[in-house]
Amino acid sequence: MTDTLAVVDGRVLTPAFDVVEADVLVDADAGEILEVAPDLASEADETLDATDSLVVPGLVNAHCHAAMTLLRGYADDKQLEAWLQEDIWPAEAELTAEDVAAGTRLAAVEMIRSGTTAFADMYFHVGEVVEAVREAGLRARVGHGVVTVGKDDEAARDDFAESLAVAEEYDGAADGRVRTAVMPHAPHTVGTQFFEEFVPRVREAGVPFHFHLNETEVYLDEIADEAGVRPTEYADDLGLLSDTTFVAHGVHTDAAEMETLAERGTAVVHCPASNAKLNSGMAPVQELLDAGVPVALGTDGAASNNDLDLFDELRDAAMIGKLAADDATAVDAETAFGMATAGGAAALGFDAGRIEAGAAADLAVVDLDAPHLTPEHDLVSHLVYAARGSDVRHTVCDGRVLMRDRDVLAFDESAVRERAQEHAEALVARAEE
Amino acid sequence: MTDTLAVVDGRVLTPAFDVVEADVLVDADAGEILEVAPDLASEADETLDATDSLVVPGLVNAHCHAAMTLLRGYADDKQLEAWLQEDIWPAEAELTAEDVAAGTRLAAVEMIRSGTTAFADMYFHVGEVVEAVREAGLRARVGHGVVTVGKDDEAARDDFAESLAVAEEYDGAADGRVRTAVMPHAPHTVGTQFFEEFVPRVREAGVPFHFHLNETEVYLDEIADEAGVRPTEYADDLGLLSDTTFVAHGVHTDAAEMETLAERGTAVVHCPASNAKLNSGMAPVQELLDAGVPVALGTDGAASNNDLDLFDELRDAAMIGKLAADDATAVDAETAFGMATAGGAAALGFDAGRIEAGAAADLAVVDLDAPHLTPEHDLVSHLVYAARGSDVRHTVCDGRVLMRDRDVLAFDESAVRERAQEHAEALVARAEE
Repeated sequence: MTDTLAVVDGRVLTPAFDVVEADVLVDADAGEILEVAPDLASEADETLDATDSLVVPGLVNAHCHAAMTLLRGYADDKQLEAWLQEDIWPAEAELTAEDVAAGTRLAAVEMIRSGTTAFADMYFHVGEVVEAVREAGLRARVGHGVVTVGKDDEAARDDFAESLAVAEEYDGAADGRVRTAVMPHAPHTVGTQFFEEFVPRVREAGVPFHFHLNETEVYLDEIADEAGVRPTEYADDLGLLSDTTFVAHGVHTDAAEMETLAERGTAVVHCPASNAKLNSGMAPVQELLDAGVPVALGTDGAASNNDLDLFDELRDAAMIGKLAADDATAVDAETAFGMATAGGAAALGFDAGRIEAGAAADLAVVDLDAPHLTPEHDLVSHLVYAARGSDVRHTVCDGRVLMRDRDVLAFDESAVRERAQEHAEALVARAEE
Repeated sequence: MTDTLAVVDGRVLTPAFDVVEADVLVDADAGEILEVAPDLASEADETLDATDSLVVPGLVNAHCHAAMTLLRGYADDKQLEAWLQEDIWPAEAELTAEDVAAGTRLAAVEMIRSGTTAFADMYFHVGEVVEAVREAGLRARVGHGVVTVGKDDEAARDDFAESLAVAEEYDGAADGRVRTAVMPHAPHTVGTQFFEEFVPRVREAGVPFHFHLNETEVYLDEIADEAGVRPTEYADDLGLLSDTTFVAHGVHTDAAEMETLAERGTAVVHCPASNAKLNSGMAPVQELLDAGVPVALGTDGAASNNDLDLFDELRDAAMIGKLAADDATAVDAETAFGMATAGGAAALGFDAGRIEAGAAADLAVVDLDAPHLTPEHDLVSHLVYAARGSDVRHTVCDGRVLMRDRDVLAFDESAVRERAQEHAEALVARAEE
């Protein structure tokens, strides 16, 4: 273990989106950035070469179901409801802890390769997720997804209780890189009485909430019919919204709902690719931002994306954001990149997403030595519109190098891929029996 | 020079979208596929290893302005009209033949790297484009873009005449890999009298047309006001539409226009990223297909994309195609991949875009040994939704290897990048003077 690491001889993207020639000195034990300045190599125990490269904050994938990598390409080109009911839920019903272990490791490799250093994970078998995060060296906010529809009261209560127990058990795991949340799947998939029973207990325990909100119009109607209010008001009435809460999607969110989200400080995690692929719609991202709602970026699961490369998401967010706003100046490159870094870190409650002294030492080093990143008129534009995950050379999280020169250090990558392939095949075979 | 080349030990995507274990034997001199069958290595003078890889048809970028790579990231997040008038046209007014030579070579490297083997190019200094295509080993249909607005009659005539002269001069260049078209920029940027004068001459010469059609609603209105008809009818009345004509964009195309395009056999080149980034809109791709209009895929120039990676475009086409149709089953993976291969080849008039005996030996070999392409439930899904240009290992065009194990053979890549950077800097300096 080295005490200090310096990322040297490259350029650095500052929180103000300036590009400066500087080294980044990191306290590897504390996982913190110490200094951003020229010529820091001599002060470090270990260096990471960033020649011809741009050092950027590690990207934050603020909504994911990591182990769904096992279902990548399993069912495409279907509307969300049919896709869930006919393909995804039957497969997930067969999911074992070992499947989650295999799928989350595959996700971790993919995220490290594409410069993602932190993610939110809503899934099952959270102990396995935590172990994969620990082994990978990533940072994550994890939780057990609660669904009560179709369950009797006891099973429903057990499910919500498990989400809280898991959140309390694993918070602070992996040297503090793992934080937790209680994750009710969505307002319409968890019964009101269970929210009423558990929300006060979760609040008392000081645990954040993460759930799906306003993903499709179909779901909107269900809530509106039952409760007579929009889902955001319904969630607010239940006490679900606060500045530690982050919600996924927000595709169909009206102006009053935006005002509520902004007042509560609740972040919306925009998942443009998943929303497009499942035809959920185009989230009004620029409107959300203009209304003061914090916005982060997420890939969602690999079954509806179909990759975990946030560089794809950056491009999608900027492009689809323009179409949604009917304005080509909307969701500009800096805005998009901010959503994937500082915006994501804030949503997940991590002191990261920016390169300056005191922030978490979570970094991605992007190789600029590439035809598609030539010429260099504007590097932020390149990050959003032209770069792809494979341009990332090195990934650093919590002061530790997770990938060096495109070599993922924590895992035997081919073993991870082989294991995932085996588990994926067995999983769908069981589901289709 | 070898006479035969075999791509061996991989899997091959058939025209019916089956994946079979087979080698591909190619007549390198004729540039033609000879046979697709197991165990062909012994019959070839040279082999290309496709272990753990999928051999697919080389992708076809059916609408591009290649040298606009020099303006990649120069002006983003602006509406098309402002972007053209304030940024792009002033820069293009300063464009020299040497700039086009530098920019087109950069584009060629980028396309070869991402598995594109054929493209359409509408730009200026076509002689330089042809020379770059020859050197790169790519296949292209090229032409000089005609704009008459703002020109006096003589200059306007000269411009149209040059487009025809250039098309006649270069057709069949580079051992037949270069074909040509006359390329009036768009119905609203070329005066009616010049169309009336030149269309019969172009038809007599047997040269195809390529132009922009229905890219934005603003342009639609201009035509509608002047001619009192929709742009497609206007173009048809001028004799511009036939089965050798291919048009770019078609974003704002109504049902009657679709019928006309289908009747004439005129292909629409869908450019989803450019249309999103400039907020031109979402082309009704599924509707076009359902109406019987041939559809191809293009990146447009790198200033509005901002890369020339058709794998991005595949994903965009499928995802935005679903949003445009309000149907997640629209523009499925096979449909999207077909647009980028057989669809593009048909639009450009090349006997390519499919792997079978007799077709042009234009191939891309996609490396499947990657976490984001694991597990293997559906390889066509992976090509469209998860793969990226950097997954391409080898690129073959006209039977010749243009890239082997990610090493581009025709060019000194760093020299190409350096030259492009110099020309880009000088170009924008002149434009901003």
